[in-house]
Amino acid sequence: MPAQRTPDPNRRNPESTKAILEAALTLARDQGWSKVSIEGIAAQAGVGKRTIYRWWPSKGAVVLDAYAARLQDRPYMSAGEAQDGELREDLVRVLGETWDMVSDSLPLLASLIGEAQHDPDLGERLWERLIGPSSLPVQARIERAQANGEIAGGADPFRAAELIYGQIYLRLLVTPKPIDAAFLENCVDLALHGLRSRA
Amino acid sequence: MPAQRTPDPNRRNPESTKAILEAALTLARDQGWSKVSIEGIAAQAGVGKRTIYRWWPSKGAVVLDAYAARLQDRPYMSAGEAQDGELREDLVRVLGETWDMVSDSLPLLASLIGEAQHDPDLGERLWERLIGPSSLPVQARIERAQANGEIAGGADPFRAAELIYGQIYLRLLVTPKPIDAAFLENCVDLALHGLRSRA
Repeated sequence: MPAQRTPDPNRRNPESTKAILEAALTLARDQGWSKVSIEGIAAQAGVGKRTIYRWWPSKGAVVLDAYAARLQDRPYMSAGEAQDGELREDLVRVLGETWDMVSDSLPLLASLIGEAQHDPDLGERLWERLIGPSSLPVQARIERAQANGEIAGGADPFRAAELIYGQIYLRLLVTPKPIDAAFLENCVDLALHGLRSRA
Repeated sequence: MPAQRTPDPNRRNPESTKAILEAALTLARDQGWSKVSIEGIAAQAGVGKRTIYRWWPSKGAVVLDAYAARLQDRPYMSAGEAQDGELREDLVRVLGETWDMVSDSLPLLASLIGEAQHDPDLGERLWERLIGPSSLPVQARIERAQANGEIAGGADPFRAAELIYGQIYLRLLVTPKPIDAAFLENCVDLALHGLRSRA
Protein backbone atom coordinates (compact mmCIF):
# COMPACT_ATOMS: atom_id res chain seq x y z
CA MET A 1 0.00 0.00 0.00
CA PRO A 2 1.24 3.50 -0.73
CA ALA A 3 2.83 4.96 2.40
CA GLN A 4 1.16 8.33 1.92
CA ARG A 5 -2.31 6.85 2.28
CA THR A 6 -2.12 4.50 5.19
CA PRO A 7 0.16 4.13 8.18
CA ASP A 8 3.15 1.80 7.86
CA PRO A 9 1.69 -1.73 7.74
CA ASN A 10 4.75 -2.98 9.63
CA ARG A 11 3.43 -1.21 12.72
CA ARG A 12 0.26 -3.28 12.75
CA ASN A 13 -0.19 -5.80 15.54
CA PRO A 14 0.65 -9.09 13.79
CA GLU A 15 -1.91 -11.16 15.68
CA SER A 16 -4.76 -8.73 15.07
CA THR A 17 -3.74 -8.41 11.44
CA LYS A 18 -3.76 -12.18 10.98
CA ALA A 19 -7.17 -12.49 12.65
CA ILE A 20 -8.61 -9.64 10.55
CA LEU A 21 -7.31 -11.03 7.25
CA GLU A 22 -8.52 -14.53 8.06
CA ALA A 23 -11.95 -13.23 9.02
CA ALA A 24 -12.17 -11.10 5.88
CA LEU A 25 -11.26 -14.00 3.61
CA THR A 26 -13.62 -16.44 5.33
CA LEU A 27 -16.56 -14.04 5.27
CA ALA A 28 -15.95 -12.91 1.68
CA ARG A 29 -15.82 -16.50 0.47
CA ASP A 30 -18.69 -17.91 2.56
CA GLN A 31 -21.15 -15.02 2.37
CA GLY A 32 -22.38 -12.94 -0.51
CA TRP A 33 -20.29 -9.83 -1.08
CA SER A 34 -23.11 -7.50 -0.04
CA LYS A 35 -23.29 -9.22 3.35
CA VAL A 36 -19.61 -8.67 4.17
CA SER A 37 -19.01 -5.57 6.28
CA ILE A 38 -16.26 -4.03 8.39
CA GLU A 39 -18.55 -4.70 11.39
CA GLY A 40 -18.80 -8.38 10.51
CA ILE A 41 -15.06 -8.72 9.96
CA ALA A 42 -14.35 -6.99 13.29
CA ALA A 43 -16.77 -9.24 15.16
CA GLN A 44 -15.38 -12.41 13.60
CA ALA A 45 -11.77 -11.33 14.25
CA GLY A 46 -12.48 -10.22 17.81
CA VAL A 47 -11.21 -6.67 17.30
CA GLY A 48 -12.86 -3.27 17.29
CA LYS A 49 -14.04 -1.63 14.08
CA ARG A 50 -11.63 1.23 14.72
CA THR A 51 -8.68 -1.14 14.55
CA ILE A 52 -9.70 -2.08 11.02
CA TYR A 53 -10.47 1.48 9.92
CA ARG A 54 -7.07 2.56 11.22
CA TRP A 55 -5.29 0.39 8.67
CA TRP A 56 -7.75 -0.09 5.81
CA PRO A 57 -10.06 2.44 4.11
CA SER A 58 -12.79 0.00 3.02
CA LYS A 59 -13.97 -3.57 3.22
CA GLY A 60 -12.69 -4.07 -0.33
CA ALA A 61 -9.17 -3.09 0.77
CA VAL A 62 -9.24 -5.59 3.66
CA VAL A 63 -10.50 -8.41 1.47
CA LEU A 64 -7.90 -7.60 -1.20
CA ASP A 65 -5.08 -7.74 1.36
CA ALA A 66 -6.42 -11.04 2.67
CA TYR A 67 -6.74 -12.51 -0.82
CA ALA A 68 -3.29 -11.28 -1.92
CA ALA A 69 -1.70 -12.73 1.21
CA ARG A 70 -3.32 -16.08 0.50
CA LEU A 71 -2.14 -16.10 -3.12
CA GLN A 72 1.39 -15.14 -2.10
CA ASP A 73 1.66 -18.49 -0.34
CA ARG A 74 1.45 -20.03 -3.80
CA PRO A 75 4.11 -20.14 -6.49
CA TYR A 76 2.61 -18.32 -9.50
CA MET A 77 4.62 -15.13 -9.17
CA SER A 78 7.70 -17.01 -10.35
CA ALA A 79 5.87 -19.16 -12.86
CA GLY A 80 7.30 -17.43 -15.91
CA GLU A 81 10.88 -17.07 -14.79
CA ALA A 82 12.09 -20.56 -15.52
CA GLN A 83 10.20 -21.01 -18.79
CA ASP A 84 12.60 -22.31 -21.39
CA GLY A 85 10.39 -24.54 -23.51
CA GLU A 86 8.55 -23.81 -26.72
CA LEU A 87 6.70 -20.48 -26.67
CA ARG A 88 3.15 -21.83 -26.98
CA GLU A 89 3.70 -24.50 -24.35
CA ASP A 90 5.31 -22.03 -21.97
CA LEU A 91 2.40 -19.60 -22.28
CA VAL A 92 -0.16 -22.38 -21.86
CA ARG A 93 1.70 -23.56 -18.76
CA VAL A 94 1.84 -20.07 -17.22
CA LEU A 95 -1.89 -19.59 -17.78
CA GLY A 96 -2.62 -23.05 -16.41
CA GLU A 97 -0.57 -22.44 -13.26
CA THR A 98 -2.23 -19.07 -12.65
CA TRP A 99 -5.60 -20.69 -13.28
CA ASP A 100 -4.89 -23.45 -10.76
CA MET A 101 -4.22 -20.75 -8.17
CA VAL A 102 -7.41 -18.78 -8.65
CA SER A 103 -9.95 -21.26 -10.02
CA ASP A 104 -11.33 -22.05 -6.55
CA SER A 105 -11.77 -18.36 -5.72
CA LEU A 106 -13.20 -16.89 -8.93
CA PRO A 107 -16.30 -15.33 -7.32
CA LEU A 108 -14.02 -13.54 -4.85
CA LEU A 109 -11.74 -12.23 -7.60
CA ALA A 110 -14.75 -11.14 -9.67
CA SER A 111 -16.31 -9.46 -6.62
CA LEU A 112 -13.13 -7.47 -5.97
CA ILE A 113 -13.03 -6.30 -9.59
CA GLY A 114 -16.74 -5.54 -9.39
CA GLU A 115 -16.36 -3.51 -6.20
CA ALA A 116 -13.43 -1.66 -7.79
CA GLN A 117 -15.81 -0.23 -10.42
CA HIS A 118 -17.40 1.85 -7.64
CA ASP A 119 -14.15 2.37 -5.65
CA PRO A 120 -11.21 3.75 -7.68
CA ASP A 121 -8.78 3.42 -4.75
CA LEU A 122 -9.55 -0.30 -4.57
CA GLY A 123 -9.09 -0.55 -8.33
CA GLU A 124 -5.63 0.97 -8.03
CA ARG A 125 -4.62 -1.37 -5.19
CA LEU A 126 -6.04 -4.38 -7.05
CA TRP A 127 -4.01 -3.55 -10.14
CA GLU A 128 -0.79 -2.84 -8.26
CA ARG A 129 -0.92 -5.76 -5.85
CA LEU A 130 -2.55 -8.52 -7.85
CA ILE A 131 -3.57 -8.12 -11.46
CA GLY A 132 -0.66 -6.10 -12.84
CA PRO A 133 2.03 -8.41 -11.43
CA SER A 134 0.12 -11.53 -12.48
CA SER A 135 0.78 -10.87 -16.17
CA LEU A 136 4.51 -10.18 -15.80
CA PRO A 137 5.55 -13.79 -16.54
CA VAL A 138 3.68 -13.67 -19.86
CA GLN A 139 5.24 -10.31 -20.72
CA ALA A 140 8.71 -11.65 -19.83
CA ARG A 141 8.21 -14.74 -22.01
CA ILE A 142 7.02 -12.59 -24.93
CA GLU A 143 10.06 -10.34 -24.55
CA ARG A 144 12.34 -13.36 -24.58
CA ALA A 145 10.54 -14.73 -27.65
CA GLN A 146 11.21 -11.42 -29.39
CA ALA A 147 14.85 -11.41 -28.28
CA ASN A 148 15.55 -14.95 -29.45
CA GLY A 149 13.63 -14.66 -32.72
CA GLU A 150 10.68 -16.93 -31.91
CA ILE A 151 8.49 -13.98 -32.87
CA ALA A 152 9.32 -10.59 -34.36
CA GLY A 153 9.81 -7.55 -32.16
CA GLY A 154 6.77 -5.59 -33.31
CA ALA A 155 4.26 -6.13 -30.53
CA ASP A 156 4.46 -4.34 -27.19
CA PRO A 157 4.74 -7.14 -24.58
CA PHE A 158 2.20 -5.35 -22.38
CA ARG A 159 -0.30 -5.29 -25.27
CA ALA A 160 0.52 -8.93 -26.01
CA ALA A 161 -0.46 -9.80 -22.45
CA GLU A 162 -3.67 -7.77 -22.85
CA LEU A 163 -4.46 -9.73 -26.02
CA ILE A 164 -4.13 -13.02 -24.13
CA TYR A 165 -5.62 -12.05 -20.75
CA GLY A 166 -8.43 -9.88 -22.17
CA GLN A 167 -10.17 -13.00 -23.45
CA ILE A 168 -10.00 -14.57 -19.99
CA TYR A 169 -11.18 -11.55 -17.99
CA LEU A 170 -14.03 -11.01 -20.46
CA ARG A 171 -15.30 -14.52 -19.65
CA LEU A 172 -14.70 -14.08 -15.93
CA LEU A 173 -16.65 -10.82 -15.75
CA VAL A 174 -19.10 -10.69 -18.64
CA THR A 175 -19.56 -13.67 -20.97
CA PRO A 176 -21.76 -16.55 -19.75
CA LYS A 177 -19.39 -19.25 -20.95
CA PRO A 178 -16.97 -21.43 -18.99
CA ILE A 179 -13.22 -21.07 -18.59
CA ASP A 180 -11.44 -24.42 -18.82
CA ALA A 181 -8.10 -25.83 -19.96
CA ALA A 182 -9.18 -26.03 -23.62
CA PHE A 183 -10.31 -22.39 -23.55
CA LEU A 184 -6.99 -21.26 -22.04
CA GLU A 185 -5.07 -23.08 -24.78
CA ASN A 186 -7.30 -21.50 -27.41
CA CYS A 187 -6.62 -18.06 -25.89
CA VAL A 188 -2.90 -18.60 -26.48
CA ASP A 189 -3.40 -20.00 -30.00
CA LEU A 190 -5.69 -17.18 -31.14
CA ALA A 191 -3.31 -14.58 -29.70
CA LEU A 192 -0.24 -16.14 -31.30
CA HIS A 193 -1.70 -16.78 -34.75
CA GLY A 194 -4.36 -14.08 -35.04
CA LEU A 195 -7.38 -14.30 -37.29
CA ARG A 196 -5.86 -13.33 -40.60
CA SER A 197 -2.82 -15.60 -40.54
CA ARG A 198 -5.06 -18.63 -40.77
CA ALA A 199 -5.78 -17.75 -44.36
CA MET B 1 -36.52 -9.54 -19.83
CA PRO B 2 -37.51 -13.19 -19.40
CA ALA B 3 -41.30 -13.42 -19.07
CA GLN B 4 -41.09 -15.97 -16.28
CA ARG B 5 -39.31 -13.56 -13.96
CA THR B 6 -41.17 -10.29 -14.28
CA PRO B 7 -44.67 -9.28 -15.37
CA ASP B 8 -45.19 -8.33 -19.00
CA PRO B 9 -43.41 -4.96 -19.46
CA ASN B 10 -46.10 -3.94 -21.95
CA ARG B 11 -48.55 -3.68 -19.07
CA ARG B 12 -46.47 -0.98 -17.38
CA ASN B 13 -47.86 2.54 -17.27
CA PRO B 14 -45.87 4.27 -20.04
CA GLU B 15 -45.62 7.61 -18.26
CA SER B 16 -44.44 6.13 -14.97
CA THR B 17 -42.00 3.91 -16.84
CA LYS B 18 -40.55 6.88 -18.70
CA ALA B 19 -40.21 8.88 -15.49
CA ILE B 20 -38.58 5.95 -13.66
CA LEU B 21 -36.07 5.24 -16.43
CA GLU B 22 -35.17 8.91 -16.77
CA ALA B 23 -34.70 9.24 -13.02
CA ALA B 24 -32.58 6.08 -12.86
CA LEU B 25 -30.30 7.23 -15.67
CA THR B 26 -29.91 10.75 -14.29
CA LEU B 27 -29.12 9.54 -10.76
CA ALA B 28 -26.77 6.78 -11.91
CA ARG B 29 -24.79 9.21 -14.04
CA ASP B 30 -24.75 12.17 -11.64
CA GLN B 31 -24.25 10.37 -8.32
CA GLY B 32 -21.85 7.66 -7.28
CA TRP B 33 -23.28 4.19 -7.79
CA SER B 34 -23.45 3.48 -4.06
CA LYS B 35 -25.69 6.54 -3.59
CA VAL B 36 -28.27 5.37 -6.14
CA SER B 37 -31.21 3.56 -4.56
CA ILE B 38 -34.72 2.43 -5.43
CA GLU B 39 -35.92 5.01 -2.88
CA GLY B 40 -34.03 7.80 -4.64
CA ILE B 41 -35.26 6.76 -8.08
CA ALA B 42 -38.86 6.61 -6.81
CA ALA B 43 -38.60 10.06 -5.21
CA GLN B 44 -37.09 11.63 -8.32
CA ALA B 45 -39.66 9.97 -10.61
CA GLY B 46 -42.60 10.85 -8.37
CA VAL B 47 -43.77 7.25 -7.96
CA GLY B 48 -43.97 4.85 -5.05
CA LYS B 49 -41.19 2.34 -4.35
CA ARG B 50 -43.69 -0.47 -4.84
CA THR B 51 -44.29 0.62 -8.42
CA ILE B 52 -40.60 0.10 -9.14
CA TYR B 53 -40.32 -3.19 -7.23
CA ARG B 54 -43.34 -4.50 -9.13
CA TRP B 55 -41.46 -4.31 -12.43
CA TRP B 56 -37.77 -4.50 -11.52
CA PRO B 57 -36.00 -6.73 -8.99
CA SER B 58 -33.08 -4.39 -8.21
CA LYS B 59 -31.67 -0.95 -8.80
CA GLY B 60 -29.20 -2.52 -11.22
CA ALA B 61 -32.07 -3.85 -13.35
CA VAL B 62 -33.73 -0.41 -13.50
CA VAL B 63 -30.50 1.34 -14.45
CA LEU B 64 -29.75 -1.31 -17.09
CA ASP B 65 -33.19 -0.83 -18.68
CA ALA B 66 -32.70 2.92 -18.65
CA TYR B 67 -29.23 2.67 -20.18
CA ALA B 68 -30.29 0.14 -22.82
CA ALA B 69 -33.27 2.31 -23.80
CA ARG B 70 -30.95 5.29 -24.22
CA LEU B 71 -28.49 3.31 -26.36
CA GLN B 72 -31.29 1.94 -28.54
CA ASP B 73 -31.95 5.47 -29.74
CA ARG B 74 -28.55 5.29 -31.39
CA PRO B 75 -27.54 3.40 -34.53
CA TYR B 76 -24.83 0.95 -33.40
CA MET B 77 -26.97 -2.18 -33.49
CA SER B 78 -26.93 -2.04 -37.28
CA ALA B 79 -23.35 -0.85 -37.57
CA GLY B 80 -22.02 -4.11 -38.95
CA GLU B 81 -24.74 -4.92 -41.40
CA ALA B 82 -23.72 -2.64 -44.22
CA GLN B 83 -19.98 -3.19 -43.91
CA ASP B 84 -18.59 -3.95 -47.33
CA GLY B 85 -15.15 -2.38 -47.17
CA GLU B 86 -11.80 -3.93 -46.34
CA LEU B 87 -11.91 -6.19 -43.27
CA ARG B 88 -9.57 -4.18 -41.05
CA GLU B 89 -11.25 -0.88 -41.88
CA ASP B 90 -14.73 -2.33 -41.32
CA LEU B 91 -13.76 -3.70 -37.91
CA VAL B 92 -12.08 -0.43 -36.90
CA ARG B 93 -15.22 1.44 -38.00
CA VAL B 94 -17.55 -0.84 -36.03
CA LEU B 95 -15.43 -0.43 -32.88
CA GLY B 96 -15.24 3.32 -33.41
CA GLU B 97 -19.02 3.65 -33.80
CA THR B 98 -19.67 1.57 -30.72
CA TRP B 99 -17.09 3.59 -28.85
CA ASP B 100 -18.73 6.86 -29.88
CA MET B 101 -21.98 5.55 -28.37
CA VAL B 102 -20.61 4.59 -24.98
CA SER B 103 -17.56 6.79 -24.45
CA ASP B 104 -19.55 9.43 -22.54
CA SER B 105 -21.08 6.82 -20.23
CA LEU B 106 -18.15 4.53 -19.42
CA PRO B 107 -18.44 4.83 -15.61
CA LEU B 108 -22.09 3.79 -15.89
CA LEU B 109 -21.28 0.78 -18.07
CA ALA B 110 -18.43 -0.22 -15.74
CA SER B 111 -20.69 0.21 -12.70
CA LEU B 112 -23.31 -2.09 -14.22
CA ILE B 113 -20.70 -4.75 -14.95
CA GLY B 114 -19.30 -4.23 -11.44
CA GLU B 115 -22.72 -4.62 -9.81
CA ALA B 116 -23.33 -7.72 -11.92
CA GLN B 117 -20.41 -9.43 -10.13
CA HIS B 118 -22.55 -9.48 -6.99
CA ASP B 119 -25.90 -9.95 -8.79
CA PRO B 120 -26.02 -12.88 -11.26
CA ASP B 121 -29.52 -11.97 -12.47
CA LEU B 122 -28.25 -8.53 -13.48
CA GLY B 123 -25.28 -10.16 -15.20
CA GLU B 124 -27.62 -12.30 -17.29
CA ARG B 125 -29.79 -9.32 -18.26
CA LEU B 126 -26.70 -7.22 -19.06
CA TRP B 127 -25.35 -9.90 -21.36
CA GLU B 128 -28.66 -10.57 -23.11
CA ARG B 129 -29.77 -6.96 -23.56
CA LEU B 130 -26.53 -5.09 -24.09
CA ILE B 131 -23.15 -6.78 -24.23
CA GLY B 132 -23.97 -9.95 -26.16
CA PRO B 133 -25.78 -8.11 -28.99
CA SER B 134 -23.11 -5.41 -29.17
CA SER B 135 -20.54 -7.83 -30.60
CA LEU B 136 -22.83 -9.31 -33.27
CA PRO B 137 -21.69 -6.88 -36.01
CA VAL B 138 -18.07 -7.97 -35.47
CA GLN B 139 -19.07 -11.63 -35.53
CA ALA B 140 -21.08 -11.09 -38.72
CA ARG B 141 -18.15 -9.33 -40.41
CA ILE B 142 -15.76 -12.14 -39.39
CA GLU B 143 -18.18 -14.74 -40.76
CA ARG B 144 -18.38 -12.87 -44.03
CA ALA B 145 -14.59 -12.59 -44.15
CA GLN B 146 -14.40 -16.36 -43.76
CA ALA B 147 -17.06 -16.91 -46.42
CA ASN B 148 -15.43 -14.64 -49.00
CA GLY B 149 -11.88 -15.85 -48.34
CA GLU B 150 -10.49 -12.71 -46.65
CA ILE B 151 -9.48 -15.00 -43.79
CA ALA B 152 -9.60 -18.77 -43.43
CA GLY B 153 -12.53 -20.48 -41.74
CA GLY B 154 -10.67 -21.77 -38.72
CA ALA B 155 -11.64 -19.36 -35.96
CA ASP B 156 -15.03 -19.39 -34.25
CA PRO B 157 -16.52 -15.91 -34.92
CA PHE B 158 -17.64 -15.70 -31.29
CA ARG B 159 -14.07 -16.35 -30.13
CA ALA B 160 -12.80 -13.86 -32.69
CA ALA B 161 -15.05 -11.23 -31.12
CA GLU B 162 -13.75 -12.20 -27.66
CA LEU B 163 -10.17 -11.75 -28.93
CA ILE B 164 -10.97 -8.21 -30.07
CA TYR B 165 -13.35 -7.08 -27.32
CA GLY B 166 -11.46 -8.73 -24.45
CA GLN B 167 -8.66 -6.20 -24.83
CA ILE B 168 -11.16 -3.34 -24.57
CA TYR B 169 -13.11 -4.66 -21.57
CA LEU B 170 -9.85 -5.42 -19.76
CA ARG B 171 -8.91 -1.73 -20.02
CA LEU B 172 -12.41 -0.58 -19.13
CA LEU B 173 -12.57 -2.70 -15.98
CA VAL B 174 -9.03 -3.42 -14.82
CA THR B 175 -6.03 -1.84 -16.54
CA PRO B 176 -5.17 1.77 -15.63
CA LYS B 177 -4.54 2.84 -19.22
CA PRO B 178 -6.70 4.87 -21.59
CA ILE B 179 -8.94 3.69 -24.41
CA ASP B 180 -8.65 5.89 -27.48
CA ALA B 181 -8.88 5.61 -31.27
CA ALA B 182 -5.27 4.42 -31.64
CA PHE B 183 -5.83 1.71 -29.03
CA LEU B 184 -9.00 0.50 -30.77
CA GLU B 185 -7.11 0.24 -34.07
CA ASN B 186 -4.31 -1.67 -32.36
CA CYS B 187 -6.88 -4.07 -30.87
CA VAL B 188 -8.02 -4.93 -34.40
CA ASP B 189 -4.46 -5.22 -35.74
CA LEU B 190 -3.22 -7.46 -32.93
CA ALA B 191 -6.29 -9.67 -33.25
CA LEU B 192 -5.99 -9.97 -37.03
CA HIS B 193 -2.27 -10.58 -37.21
CA GLY B 194 -1.51 -12.24 -33.89
CA LEU B 195 1.88 -12.21 -32.22
CA ARG B 196 3.61 -14.96 -34.11
CA SER B 197 2.76 -13.89 -37.64
CA ARG B 198 4.86 -10.77 -37.20
CA ALA B 199 7.96 -12.92 -37.42
